[in-house]
Amino acid sequence: MGTGEGDHGEPDLWGGRFRTGLDPAVRRFTGSLSFDRRLARHDLVASMAHVRSLWEARVLEDGDARRLLEGLSGILSELEEGELEVEGPDEDVHGWIERTLTDRVGAVGGKVHTGRSRNDQTGAALRLYLRERLAGLVAGALDAAEAWTDRAEEHREDVMPGYTHLQPAQPVTLGHHLMAHARAVLADARRLRDARREAGVSPLGAAALAGSSHRLDPGRTAQLAGLEEAYDNSVLAVSDRDYVAAALFSVALLMTHLSRWATEMVLWTSPQFGFAELPDGLAQGSSLMPQKKNPEVAEVLRGKTGRVVGALAGFLTTLKGLPLAYNSDLQEDKEPLFDALDTGAGALEVTAATARGLRFHPARMRAACDRGFLAATDLADELVRRGTPFREAHRQVGRAVLAAEERGCGLADLPLDVLRECCPGAEEEMRERLDVEAVVASRDGRGDPAPARVGEQVRRAREEIAGLRRWRDELEEPPVYRAYRSGTLLEAP
Amino acid sequence: MGTGEGDHGEPDLWGGRFRTGLDPAVRRFTGSLSFDRRLARHDLVASMAHVRSLWEARVLEDGDARRLLEGLSGILSELEEGELEVEGPDEDVHGWIERTLTDRVGAVGGKVHTGRSRNDQTGAALRLYLRERLAGLVAGALDAAEAWTDRAEEHREDVMPGYTHLQPAQPVTLGHHLMAHARAVLADARRLRDARREAGVSPLGAAALAGSSHRLDPGRTAQLAGLEEAYDNSVLAVSDRDYVAAALFSVALLMTHLSRWATEMVLWTSPQFGFAELPDGLAQGSSLMPQKKNPEVAEVLRGKTGRVVGALAGFLTTLKGLPLAYNSDLQEDKEPLFDALDTGAGALEVTAATARGLRFHPARMRAACDRGFLAATDLADELVRRGTPFREAHRQVGRAVLAAEERGCGLADLPLDVLRECCPGAEEEMRERLDVEAVVASRDGRGDPAPARVGEQVRRAREEIAGLRRWRDELEEPPVYRAYRSGTLLEAP
Amino acid sequence: MGTGEGDHGEPDLWGGRFRTGLDPAVRRFTGSLSFDRRLARHDLVASMAHVRSLWEARVLEDGDARRLLEGLSGILSELEEGELEVEGPDEDVHGWIERTLTDRVGAVGGKVHTGRSRNDQTGAALRLYLRERLAGLVAGALDAAEAWTDRAEEHREDVMPGYTHLQPAQPVTLGHHLMAHARAVLADARRLRDARREAGVSPLGAAALAGSSHRLDPGRTAQLAGLEEAYDNSVLAVSDRDYVAAALFSVALLMTHLSRWATEMVLWTSPQFGFAELPDGLAQGSSLMPQKKNPEVAEVLRGKTGRVVGALAGFLTTLKGLPLAYNSDLQEDKEPLFDALDTGAGALEVTAATARGLRFHPARMRAACDRGFLAATDLADELVRRGTPFREAHRQVGRAVLAAEERGCGLADLPLDVLRECCPGAEEEMRERLDVEAVVASRDGRGDPAPARVGEQVRRAREEIAGLRRWRDELEEPPVYRAYRSGTLLEAP
Amino acid sequence: MGTGEGDHGEPDLWGGRFRTGLDPAVRRFTGSLSFDRRLARHDLVASMAHVRSLWEARVLEDGDARRLLEGLSGILSELEEGELEVEGPDEDVHGWIERTLTDRVGAVGGKVHTGRSRNDQTGAALRLYLRERLAGLVAGALDAAEAWTDRAEEHREDVMPGYTHLQPAQPVTLGHHLMAHARAVLADARRLRDARREAGVSPLGAAALAGSSHRLDPGRTAQLAGLEEAYDNSVLAVSDRDYVAAALFSVALLMTHLSRWATEMVLWTSPQFGFAELPDGLAQGSSLMPQKKNPEVAEVLRGKTGRVVGALAGFLTTLKGLPLAYNSDLQEDKEPLFDALDTGAGALEVTAATARGLRFHPARMRAACDRGFLAATDLADELVRRGTPFREAHRQVGRAVLAAEERGCGLADLPLDVLRECCPGAEEEMRERLDVEAVVASRDGRGDPAPARVGEQVRRAREEIAGLRRWRDELEEPPVYRAYRSGTLLEAP
Repeated sequence: MGTGEGDHGEPDLWGGRFRTGLDPAVRRFTGSLSFDRRLARHDLVASMAHVRSLWEARVLEDGDARRLLEGLSGILSELEEGELEVEGPDEDVHGWIERTLTDRVGAVGGKVHTGRSRNDQTGAALRLYLRERLAGLVAGALDAAEAWTDRAEEHREDVMPGYTHLQPAQPVTLGHHLMAHARAVLADARRLRDARREAGVSPLGAAALAGSSHRLDPGRTAQLAGLEEAYDNSVLAVSDRDYVAAALFSVALLMTHLSRWATEMVLWTSPQFGFAELPDGLAQGSSLMPQKKNPEVAEVLRGKTGRVVGALAGFLTTLKGLPLAYNSDLQEDKEPLFDALDTGAGALEVTAATARGLRFHPARMRAACDRGFLAATDLADELVRRGTPFREAHRQVGRAVLAAEERGCGLADLPLDVLRECCPGAEEEMRERLDVEAVVASRDGRGDPAPARVGEQVRRAREEIAGLRRWRDELEEPPVYRAYRSGTLLEAP
Repeated sequence: MGTGEGDHGEPDLWGGRFRTGLDPAVRRFTGSLSFDRRLARHDLVASMAHVRSLWEARVLEDGDARRLLEGLSGILSELEEGELEVEGPDEDVHGWIERTLTDRVGAVGGKVHTGRSRNDQTGAALRLYLRERLAGLVAGALDAAEAWTDRAEEHREDVMPGYTHLQPAQPVTLGHHLMAHARAVLADARRLRDARREAGVSPLGAAALAGSSHRLDPGRTAQLAGLEEAYDNSVLAVSDRDYVAAALFSVALLMTHLSRWATEMVLWTSPQFGFAELPDGLAQGSSLMPQKKNPEVAEVLRGKTGRVVGALAGFLTTLKGLPLAYNSDLQEDKEPLFDALDTGAGALEVTAATARGLRFHPARMRAACDRGFLAATDLADELVRRGTPFREAHRQVGRAVLAAEERGCGLADLPLDVLRECCPGAEEEMRERLDVEAVVASRDGRGDPAPARVGEQVRRAREEIAGLRRWRDELEEPPVYRAYRSGTLLEAP
Repeated sequence: MGTGEGDHGEPDLWGGRFRTGLDPAVRRFTGSLSFDRRLARHDLVASMAHVRSLWEARVLEDGDARRLLEGLSGILSELEEGELEVEGPDEDVHGWIERTLTDRVGAVGGKVHTGRSRNDQTGAALRLYLRERLAGLVAGALDAAEAWTDRAEEHREDVMPGYTHLQPAQPVTLGHHLMAHARAVLADARRLRDARREAGVSPLGAAALAGSSHRLDPGRTAQLAGLEEAYDNSVLAVSDRDYVAAALFSVALLMTHLSRWATEMVLWTSPQFGFAELPDGLAQGSSLMPQKKNPEVAEVLRGKTGRVVGALAGFLTTLKGLPLAYNSDLQEDKEPLFDALDTGAGALEVTAATARGLRFHPARMRAACDRGFLAATDLADELVRRGTPFREAHRQVGRAVLAAEERGCGLADLPLDVLRECCPGAEEEMRERLDVEAVVASRDGRGDPAPARVGEQVRRAREEIAGLRRWRDELEEPPVYRAYRSGTLLEAP
Repeated sequence: MGTGEGDHGEPDLWGGRFRTGLDPAVRRFTGSLSFDRRLARHDLVASMAHVRSLWEARVLEDGDARRLLEGLSGILSELEEGELEVEGPDEDVHGWIERTLTDRVGAVGGKVHTGRSRNDQTGAALRLYLRERLAGLVAGALDAAEAWTDRAEEHREDVMPGYTHLQPAQPVTLGHHLMAHARAVLADARRLRDARREAGVSPLGAAALAGSSHRLDPGRTAQLAGLEEAYDNSVLAVSDRDYVAAALFSVALLMTHLSRWATEMVLWTSPQFGFAELPDGLAQGSSLMPQKKNPEVAEVLRGKTGRVVGALAGFLTTLKGLPLAYNSDLQEDKEPLFDALDTGAGALEVTAATARGLRFHPARMRAACDRGFLAATDLADELVRRGTPFREAHRQVGRAVLAAEERGCGLADLPLDVLRECCPGAEEEMRERLDVEAVVASRDGRGDPAPARVGEQVRRAREEIAGLRRWRDELEEPPVYRAYRSGTLLEAP
């Protein structure tokens, strides 16, 4: 159940209005402890912030506040030490915490709920959890980007066919190709960072939906919990799941990027390409076929893209058409989100591992440049420079391609007379311009595949990675958590 | 990993081609034991069918076949008795079974793989599992349909507003309304049954993708495994996941039906409607607000629709663009499927519970008929019968509605002179026709809301439910499983 | 707007209740004439069935019925002849028809609405339209299946590498591989046929949601309209869009199948594979790069899979959480459905064209068999036959693969002494068994790749295609349409 | 086809490599002129920027540059004046422009393609188009937010039940509730603005995928086209569709917000709620049922949410698994995007219209507060203030709720002795605190529903709206477009 307004697992807590307990089928169907237990630490931190804020506002008296904070600290500490497990008959982690707290501090435990409801409580815990995970995903994205960047630097001079429509189009450098992946995932890192900020609005104080009559200071609570600001409207605060949707989208888009890398690993390690090989530690074999070395990791990476796209589509379906304010449909936010975050984190880890581990075969890439007439555009350009109109040059080169295809050779290998039959303006010295290394070297604008330009891209990427790492390193734990760690949590305000 | 061709968790089984073990990150990312363990029994049954078929075809000798079948039986028996847990370092359940078997019967254990690969093995286990679950879902759908049918019979005479656009349109009977839900889920029952049949094609014998050189009889293996037929093409056999997609679709559509019921429970139990009340055992309270009695079960039911829609969309995304034959992307079939089946089963259970348990308030439904001018169409019809063209009658009645709205009364309560100002052809006796009971009684065609017609619908539904129950009851366990249970599995062919 | 209960575009028809016309922004947002105009013919046929049924039931008098049928026939005839366009200020096609009819036959035109509402009317038109399109899609699927089957017969002896994980696994025949595609799309043909049947429930007579007080015979109306049966429950009849969802699913799954073929065309025509070539009429070039011959058609085919998956997911999202009975959300059924049907039809057409037109290069496929150690499993099998346990044989062959890889040769090309170093039990005569033709020939079970078995598959497929073609050819136009064509529509019942 | 590398509709332009024209089925399936024609103006602007940049870099000579710019200007001007239609045999708008240009300026027209390919060209046009539309959507979102804000100010003192789980929970003000919607859509406005920035990376200069050997200045081209920066990596530049996905997501999330408003309109205008009424211009009637006034606009708004969710899910499906660089799958970006943008724009328009036009019935909202025991939490709070522990107070109030329910009265109406039987600590003066106006007034923290706090929210929203309006008003047309308008486009650099 998780995000209802009450400690639903315990009908006794719903008070005098209920005469019987919950039907077991309903309890099973709506219970959430099995998966929301991972919010325990974050709920405790949010609860500490809430209690501390109540204390500072003199809504709670010193004694009560201290006992609550001691109780919460004790639970958190034991969880962190692995001395306590989140388990029991409770329907959700929030019920577990309230029960555990009350077992320890007695009836005062109920005061943790002063001016609070499940509706703002669960939102706060989920936001804290999500922010932690998104910061982790940023780090994972940076690792992957760095892995590609390192390899790009290493291979900035190695020439390979650039493909469009999986047909050889024009030569590029392997380093340039790898930087395309690095760049894509750097954009993901920024998007994940922005999603983390979007998750930074604190709902604490909105209570069930209407705020409370206690003199709370939601801004102070937000600050103590390490969030960026308090809610602007209490009804929206408990109804809003934009941050979940935004996080799901940022991971789904990330996965589409990684799926492209995955497809290339599958292609490149296939003998038909032979551009790369997975080291033994990243490949999988077959118990039937002794020769197999399968890029299963790449396929699973690509396949898992579907589950995150599905999580996003499914969650938007869940959101559709709900009236304000809180509805229990919203408790369906957690499982797709957790799954997407776990999938994204694992995906980035194997991406970095494969980006670092893949063994490229530059010689085979270079050899592949001899198929596909990669310099055809440049031959046409040369003809244009000597006065042939482009459309005519294009047509002539097309004929030369057919001639070379029939002979099974490359354009540069066509005898000059044959070449001239197709392209009357062709000259001997043009042919050296058709060398793929020369072609690549001529692509020398900013962002283009020439080796020096790849070097620039590498430098720019390294700067951006360093900047985002710095941002990540400078993230601080929530003030209330730092107080807990430093032992100052119980000091009088 | 699950569905690769080898016992991937154990690089040792991949043989001489591999020099190092699998990277732990890859192992984590691609491992599947944590969720595919639920296929253990079904894999064992499929394995028994495979071994028995090999034995009958004399590919395996008596001694080997008996030892394998003894080994497999022992594992199955211990699993069924709860004496054995599927756990260990294995990457998937198939690896766990092979390791466990070999631990017990020695090297002959490897012969279970004769003429088989992971690719056909996993498909067979998944199909057997899915068929069992789909039969269970059919039963769940029938329970829900029966619950509504029972309530429909009970309330076949109770009149309520029929809504279109959530505006009162014309009166219907509550029983009629409930039969709409029963009918929808009966169609689901048939769809689930058909999805079960679609899952009945056996891939056993297709091996990795190309069949095998052993003289197997895939048709006999299929029969022993309780499947409906053997594959027609070995490449498709290991590439095909249509049955997973079809099952996901049938559950997704089921969920959209249940979500409509869920929405109505939310509406009807809201004080603004007040048409129904959840008994205490099906409602949830609030630890903050003592008065709350929340239809959380309905909201969770509606909310979970999203996850199944997402599972379907995500799995189709995973399938998109894969070349033949087996690719490890396909191992992403299991988690969305398991989740959808679990969700669907739980959803049907709480649907049946709420359909049985919801307390209707017929008096309030009847009272609501007084708002909304439900007989307006019938007043127009009466005018038409007395010669007013329909379009003109429609216009006149519209004016009468405005007049009644201004007076805050119903059409039948308008003084005759006022009514006649709007509808010059109105007569006193018409007014009794505007009584909602009379209106409902006049809707007396097959499939219409008149009480007797609801009774007919109830009878037809009961027959259909009984027919599908019979089908379900007559389903047999796979022959090889029956032989295992009856102790004849090891008898010579 | 389309599927509201009234001719909404014409507030005048909503009668006396409305004092002002519709806001233009709302009219734009909810209008549907621009796309639902394609239902015109089907609405006319459904209307004829409705009127004829009313006449037979004596609800309409001879004169009125004849004038209505004459009017409807005239409109249909002019539409079929291209003499009339569906256009005007009407908000939907149903409003257009009613207005056009009334312009022609006068006030009696309004009687076409006797015992009918927009809610059952639009459902009937959409079902008739959908059934026509699904029959067309079945035909398209059969064409594609036949194209592959023809090519499979042609290439039943040509050997190619069978892939798993895009790694060469074991040799198959090209014919066998193509039959996998043929089989997949034959399953689609059956699924589309079943979806057509599912669309065969007539809602006519359910009116707004509650049937009507006129003595209609919905069963007879269904029969006249060429549908399979009448509704069982009037509320469900106007709320049900299962048939739309089922059609969307059947096309979405079809598209995933075609996307696999598309991926293979992209791979195979890439020079790295070189297994096939698109003829000029099916490939596209580049205005920039004269050498390019791009498989754009395959990429667009694969890319369009997304839109149909999206249409399905989106429509299920739309359905989620709607209360009974009709809600205007449901008018969002048409555009995704039309788009999916058009996309599916076009996709089948280009699939058949490419399946017929693709030029295979069997020699290159055969040459590719020399890479990838396709006979490794068979070498292990040979060792097993000579007494080596399978697991040990597998390990030995793995070592032989490494040795061959180092030498850059195939397994069969390893000197016998080297082979024996790895596999002590190896013998000279084994090597001929490693020939891929021999390996394929040994895969000789039903459904396996041996040429004769492909021949069997071809025969079975041809029978199935012929059976489905027969079914398709025997489909009849709706009785009322046949009466219209034969001039007997106006004959007295 | 749209985004291939060549003017594909005209095989003649593919040059000497092609011997036959394109199959008509393929042409139909891959053609895009019917929908990408809406990019004509944006492609012309991008082309002008490209030509002007080439001129400034001296890649084009004065004469050629001037003729090209004159030609492009002429076409743009005629399109803007409505004197020219984008139609013809061309397969996409880019082919149409090149053909039209060449018709006008002769062979020099081909030079517009210098250093450019379809791949960077289409991306540039789509980005320019998208940015224009997103700015328009921001404006639409601001209009909707302002409409709610105005109404919120008007109704900041009107009390209504606040709902959770669609059960009355605690009283709020109508103004507060409306501000929740305003806030949600203000977040959308920011998200749409950010999506516009994301679309600001210029791919111009990346050509097919590898840049070009001409000395272009992509940064200058970007600036002239009014984009924010040039690409960082040419391969990514032509492969990247993140901006399309981000735009789709921002519209999909927007639609989920609007769907919540839609649901509330449906609920509130239902007689069971009776909280509001649609004016005649925003409601739709029924041709059958004279009394109906249907909130179709709200239902269509809610229903269309599905299509945008589907567009997003579908496009991510399309992206999945594509290798770099450009593939024609990507041409499937346009239709879902166009549809989502159109849907979002129309949805915002009807949202603003309904937010402005809906007639609220504050008296009925106030009356509804008497059902649902909205002050139960506050009664418990009062008991707590007098010393009862919260959990006990909660239980006592629960009993009071049951007692009031049995009597059919509110909590404040219970005789004091009955109240005290349930809550021994209850006192007479407490009862005035249970008045919903008093309860609302006590919710007086920042962001809470007290009237003054709603006033603050209104002020903050107005500031934010003004700020975003200013941003929008200050957006400038691309420099090259301004030069075209001011007649300076042809001035020498």
